[in-house]
This record gives sequence, structure tokens and C-alpha cells, in this order.
Amino acid sequence: MRNVLPMLAVASSLALAAQTTPPQAARTYTTPRQAELIQQFQDFLAIPNVAADPASLRRNADFLAAQLQQRGAEAKLLTAPSLPATVPPVVFGEIKTPGAKRTIVFYAHYDGQPVTPSEWDTGKPFTPIIKQVDGEPRIYARGAGDDKAAIFAQLTALSALQAAHIPLQANIRFVWEGEEEAGSTHLEQILTANRDLIHGDVWLVCDGPVDQTRRQTLIFGARGDAHVQITVYGPNRSLHSGHYGNWAPNPAMMLVQLLAGMKDADGHVLIPHFYDGIVPLGPTEKQALATAPVNDDMLRQELALGHTDGGGKHLLELINQPSLNINGISSGQTGAHSTNSIPPTATANLDLRLVVGIDPKTQQQRVIDYIRAQGYFITTTPPTRDELLAHAKVAYIQADPGEPASRTPIDLPIATDVIKAIESARGKVILLPTSGGTVPLDAMERAANTRTISVPIANHDDNQHAANENLRLQNLWDGIETMAVLIAMP
Amino acid sequence: MRNVLPMLAVASSLALAAQTTPPQAARTYTTPRQAELIQQFQDFLAIPNVAADPASLRRNADFLAAQLQQRGAEAKLLTAPSLPATVPPVVFGEIKTPGAKRTIVFYAHYDGQPVTPSEWDTGKPFTPIIKQVDGEPRIYARGAGDDKAAIFAQLTALSALQAAHIPLQANIRFVWEGEEEAGSTHLEQILTANRDLIHGDVWLVCDGPVDQTRRQTLIFGARGDAHVQITVYGPNRSLHSGHYGNWAPNPAMMLVQLLAGMKDADGHVLIPHFYDGIVPLGPTEKQALATAPVNDDMLRQELALGHTDGGGKHLLELINQPSLNINGISSGQTGAHSTNSIPPTATANLDLRLVVGIDPKTQQQRVIDYIRAQGYFITTTPPTRDELLAHAKVAYIQADPGEPASRTPIDLPIATDVIKAIESARGKVILLPTSGGTVPLDAMERAANTRTISVPIANHDDNQHAANENLRLQNLWDGIETMAVLIAMP
Repeated sequence: MRNVLPMLAVASSLALAAQTTPPQAARTYTTPRQAELIQQFQDFLAIPNVAADPASLRRNADFLAAQLQQRGAEAKLLTAPSLPATVPPVVFGEIKTPGAKRTIVFYAHYDGQPVTPSEWDTGKPFTPIIKQVDGEPRIYARGAGDDKAAIFAQLTALSALQAAHIPLQANIRFVWEGEEEAGSTHLEQILTANRDLIHGDVWLVCDGPVDQTRRQTLIFGARGDAHVQITVYGPNRSLHSGHYGNWAPNPAMMLVQLLAGMKDADGHVLIPHFYDGIVPLGPTEKQALATAPVNDDMLRQELALGHTDGGGKHLLELINQPSLNINGISSGQTGAHSTNSIPPTATANLDLRLVVGIDPKTQQQRVIDYIRAQGYFITTTPPTRDELLAHAKVAYIQADPGEPASRTPIDLPIATDVIKAIESARGKVILLPTSGGTVPLDAMERAANTRTISVPIANHDDNQHAANENLRLQNLWDGIETMAVLIAMP
Repeated sequence: MRNVLPMLAVASSLALAAQTTPPQAARTYTTPRQAELIQQFQDFLAIPNVAADPASLRRNADFLAAQLQQRGAEAKLLTAPSLPATVPPVVFGEIKTPGAKRTIVFYAHYDGQPVTPSEWDTGKPFTPIIKQVDGEPRIYARGAGDDKAAIFAQLTALSALQAAHIPLQANIRFVWEGEEEAGSTHLEQILTANRDLIHGDVWLVCDGPVDQTRRQTLIFGARGDAHVQITVYGPNRSLHSGHYGNWAPNPAMMLVQLLAGMKDADGHVLIPHFYDGIVPLGPTEKQALATAPVNDDMLRQELALGHTDGGGKHLLELINQPSLNINGISSGQTGAHSTNSIPPTATANLDLRLVVGIDPKTQQQRVIDYIRAQGYFITTTPPTRDELLAHAKVAYIQADPGEPASRTPIDLPIATDVIKAIESARGKVILLPTSGGTVPLDAMERAANTRTISVPIANHDDNQHAANENLRLQNLWDGIETMAVLIAMP
């Protein structure tokens, strides 16, 4: 009889665990602890996470490794042999489950987009504050939505499952990147150097926003992205616009004339071959797209848009096409700082979103060929005086390595299991063949020899990549439930 | 006999004065005192003079009034009855000459263009420094060339004439404005309120640069100037370019397409009626233009320009035409601060240089009509949400009162006398019918019931209206000679 009681205790604990589902565990854990959890999230958001500040990025990494260890996970900071110490490491965490048949990898990133503090209402992107929007609380800070929310939801889901004594069934791995907003420059190199650690049956890429209806969304691919920075030249110093206007060429005028021809009035790109090579969607993807909610009218109201590009096509359809966007343009000064001058240079930054079938280099080259066809002499280093004098029009082009697009079939068995698990907690999910935004899925799939499915949790209106980035707190509580079912899935 | 000696002494002093010409007096005074004069000029330049800082502009005015008084001139700060105390006053100085047949008024301005310190090599626009350029010293500071040089040359010329005991022949008045770079908003009002004080037979407008050959230049008119600031609208907040690119209109793309059509590849303005109403040059003006130096090739080399606008016409010819210049354009961010986003707005500041026959309002209206013809709904206040939703394209236009162009006939008797006086000191001068840059000549002529002739002294390559503004010191020494002959002229 000596052994009976302990055995019964174990059995009873298992019975209790079986009664508590992962979503229940998440709610039971978070509801009484909201204030405490918000404070913990604020502490995380208060650590600056921009590429220009590698020391702070490293503080994020150390913080996260400690958080993993506190929850009983093994934690390591991963890098590659030849990389300088300033490259932000990948934070790796692992919970091995004896007898597990699957390994599920959770990807997210702890770095954020660059900040211009003066554009933020608070002036302080790393001093998180809570504000009510439409009667609901949101937390404002760089990284709140993109993408510290996902990391914090995973850590909290882990705590909730442990508090409810729900045993894990799969091996769980966490891969949290520190260079996503800088173009994931070293991700593939780091993953390849740690191939055995980071392999999994599926990578769940927890980044980006859910659908505008706020329903949980699963996304099976992402557009790629490639950048082209264009600088054109006028006089070699700023000139008085009165004394030289009509004679000295104005680089701002040159640049607007160059860019204006790249698109028609509907936003269709006119650069030759821009749409060549697109791999079309399959029937399952087309079906998913056809049943996904169309939020265009709501969005148009929300964004106060008097018209949209795309000749009447829906947003979800249009993000399955490549795009060309002016991220920024600048020459001289505007507003109160404007002076009567002919500026020496004008610069525009373009981003080119890519779909499966068009790689970054190809698309960048099409843009460069177009610029050359407009009579520009192209340089890839700042032009010399001789080059400027020898050519009527000179364009200095900076192109980044870019990131190709990727797409996982929606009907893959692991995909079916993930959909089923999430729907058990969050109801009918929205399935999208691709995300408009870019995640380095292609690099992950190559390096980890896996497939990817994106599981975003942030609100669509989170101002990611802009000032006043925020997370609607309900998205955090919902996201913790979603992460709990995925961490606990078979 | 008692009175003979004093009388002889006076006669001998007059004889000595007769032997010393004004240019000689200037050289004799400045040559042994260059270091001391440079220090005095630096003290003047160290007083900040931007419109955003009215307290410092007032310090400039007080400083100048004291300088005038030290040289025996009456000095006053002029304003108009209804103006707030923050409006920079006109510094007025007067030296009455008994028996004078003429009153000569010297206009200059003590305010400078706005500054962006980060763009200056020193980071400090009001900490003057001396640097050698092509083996010649220049002084760098905001206002060095535009237009504190002229004021300092006038003060020093006065000292030089007094040191050489050269008696004046005309009544001399100084009118030094503090709002020229802010569009001379209150100049006409202040002049009108002080009409009797500021009247003169001629106003010598000492502003702007001399010809690129560095020869003394006289200019008989100025282009006017009017501004249009255009803001166009995309989404009401910055959007992720991946999630919304192809669908949400990009205001930078809208703006470049709007601006691109305003000019052809040669810089000819395509806005309907833009060149309508121009009053052509008379035969004397055409003759002056035909004999003025053509410095285009030298300038093209100096400015590293691979081409020029205007279809092969010369600079001097082109500045007798109206112009349209993009002073600045901005949307989103460029370079290292660029983010993957669709910016909410895009702004451009245009300046429209005017010639006699086209007034500011007319030219601004032509631009506005053009924008409307491109399908834009025009607002003159920031657009409301309803306006944005109701119109595919909305442009918020801010137009300033502007400044009309002006032209004085070169063959006027007072003009002939001024030319003769300057040529006695500085050799053959260059006569130009108009300046490309704008001076509020029209307002001066109306308010002071006078005619204007511009007598610039700054070097053409002084970076006026830009960072690293400077004055070539030789231009200062030459300018003091020029001012000495003009102050001493009959």
C-alpha cells in the first residue's frame, strides 16, 4: 500500500490537468495577474531595441535568456563563428519532452524598427505607456506590436501551462531573432551554424498583425522585400534659387520626374517586366482567399482614404502581387525650415515587395534598368566630380541583399494540425496564402530544413514600423491563449 | 591776423581731404586694421539673426543703433503703430549734410535665413570662423554674405571717411531691415509709417552677390518671389508598406506625379499661362545683358553640373524669366532612418520667381489651378476627415503674400551718377537689368517714393541661404571702398 498514495496523487494531478485545457490555463493565469503582467511587458519594452544600438539589443537578448531559464527552459545565445560581437545574437530556448514525436519551433524577433522620437506623442519610444483607444487599453512603445508581443505571449503561455501542470507533448524550441528589422542580415548564417539546434517539424513564425476583423489569422507565406535607395544630383552645393533658378538643375525635380513614371494613377507599376515570373496561387490558396473577410470598406473609413490603388481589387488580392513603395523622399527642407534654394541632392528609398517567382536581385535590376533607360548614368558608389561633369543625369543606387518570398501549402498535414489546435481555442481562423509584409521565411526554411506557418497576434492598427507603435492589450491576452494551445499541441 | 591761422588750418585740412579720395581713404583705413575689423565683424555675426529668435534679432538692432551713434549718426529703431514688439524693427540711421542737394538711402538687412546647425561643418552657424578657400581667407557664419557684410561695409566706410576727414556732400540715410529673409512681412508698413524719414532720391539696395567674375556689379531690378507649400494625403497614419502596399495610396508617389508634370526635361514650366504677361526688356537693358560676362562654363565646372536647364540659354538670360523651383520635398524618411512604410503625407515647398508683369497672386493661382486640373480637391486649411474621405486626391495649399518684381531704367540720371561714382573706385562695372534673387524693391519704391539700384558686394559662391554661408574677405575690403564712394558722392 505504501506506493498507492503517491501513485494516486500523480493520477489525480494528471486528471486535473486533463480537465484544464490550455486556453483555460491561459485565462486562469492571466486574468488575476493583468497588472503584474503589463508591468513585466513594460519592463521588456523599456529596453531599447534598434539596430543602431547593439549594446541595448544585447541587453534584450540577456533578458530573454534569463526569462527562459526562469521557466525551466535551456537557453543559449546563438551566433556564427566569424561574426563580430556586435551582431545581435539569436536567443535560443529549448524544452525537451521525453517521447515527443514532434519538434515545434516558435520564431519571433526582439529587435524593432528605427525610431524618430520627435514623431512620437510621448517623444519617448522606450517609455511604455497605456492609453485607451475606443474604450480599450493599448500599450505604446517601439516593439509593442512588432514583435515583442509574440515573445512575451510565448513566455507567459509557458508560465500558464506550468501553473496548471499541463504536460507538454512535443519538443518545444524558441528562436528569437535580433536583426529582423535590419533585414535579417545574419539570420541564415546563424541558423546554418546551429542547424541541429534549430531544426523542427514546423516553424511557427509569430510576427505581424492579425486580420482587421481581429480574428485569429494563419498565414502560409510572406512577400519578400528588396530595397533600392536612389540619390540624384544637382549642383555640388545648395544654391540660391533666385540667382540660379531656371539654369541649375533641381535634383528634387529630376527625382520626381524619375519616380513619377514608375507607376500609373492606379498604382500599377510601369517598370518593364515588373510582374514577370509570378508563380500563381493553387486552388486551395485561391479558395482560402475567396473566403477570407474583405475589410476594405472598414479600412478605408479607418484610414480616411478617399481612394485606393489597384483599380478596385481587394487588399487581400493585391498583397499577392509584387509592389513598389516610396518609403521616403527628401531633398532640401520643407515647412518652416524651407529655404529658397536649389538642393544639391535628392534621395528616395523604395521598397519592392516580392512574390514567389521573383527574387530580390531580379526585381532590383528591373528598377535599375528603368532608371538607366531614363538617361541616368548609374553608380553604386558616391559619384565622383568627373562622373557628375561627364553625365547630364547621375543616379547613385544602393541595393540591399533583400529577402525572397515564400509560401507553404495550406493542405500540408502539419498545417492541418496547427489549424485544428488553434481553432479549439480561438474559433474559426482566417487562412491567408500570403502576408503582405516580409518575414525571412525562405532563409528559415532553407537553414532549418522545415516549413513555416505564420501565427500573428498583434492588432492590424498597431502602427508597426511607424511612430506610436502599440499593442491592443486584448490581443495580448488572446495571443497568450493561442500560444498556449500551440506549445501544448501534440 | 588773429583769424588767419585757424582759417589756414581749415583750408589745409580741406586741401588734405581733397587729395585723399574715398577709395584711398577706405584702403588707408582698412589695410592696417584688418585683424581688428575682422574681430568686429565676428562680434556682429555672433549675434544670432533668424526669424525664430526675435530676441536675438532685437539684439542685432540695438547693436547696430549703437554702431551708428558711435559714428555720429542719428539712430532710431523704426516700427509701425499696430505691430507687436516681437516684430524686428528697422534700424534707421541718418547723417544730415547742410546744403546737400540729394538724399541717398542705403538699404541692407540684418536678419538671415533659417539654420540647420547639423548641416554646417562647424555645427555652429553663429560661431564665425576663418577658413582658406583657394588660398584666400573667408569668414563662415549665417549672415556673413547675406547680408551683414553690406551693413558692416557701410559702417566701416563711414569710419574711413571720417578718419580721412572727407566731408559728405549728400544727406545719408541707412535703412537696415530685420525681416528680409522672412519675406519682409512688415517692411512696407514700417516704411509707410515713417515715410518722411526714409524717403530718398535713390535707394541703394546693398544685398546679394556680385557677378561670378568677382567684378563690381550694379543691378537695376529684382525678380519677385511667391511661395506655395503643397501637402498631399495618403492614409491618416503611417502604414506598414508590406501589409498595405499596392492598396493604400502613397502620398509621396502622388506628390511626385503631381510635381513631375510641372516642368519638362529642360526646366521649361508646363503650367498653363505661366509665362503670360511678361513685360519685355527695353533696348538699354538688352544692350547691358548682351555685354555682361557669360560665366556659364566656369560655373558649370565650379558646381560640377553635367547639364543645365533652359535649353542652352545663358544664366543671365534665364534669370529674366519667371521660374519654378522645388525648395524642398519630404515624405517618410530616407537613408538610415528609412522605414518600410507608406507615409501619411508628402509635402513640397515651391518658390516661384516673378518678373515685371506677373504678380505673386496671379502666379500662385496658376499653380493652384494646375493642381486642381490634376484632379485635386484644394483646401487652404488642413483637410478634415470628411474632406479626405470625399475626395480621391486632396491638396492643402499654403500661399504667402509674396513680393512683386521691380526694374529701374538703367539710363535714369541718378543711375548714371551712381555708375560714374563706383567706376571711379572699382573700374568698369557690370550692369544687369535684373537680379535672379528677390529684394522687396517694389515695396521700397512704393513706400519711399523712390527708385532702387542694387549694389551687392558679396561673393557669388557665399552659400547664402544654405549651410556654411561665408564671405570672401577680399569682397569685404572691396565693398568698403564701394560704400565709401557712394556715401561721399554728390
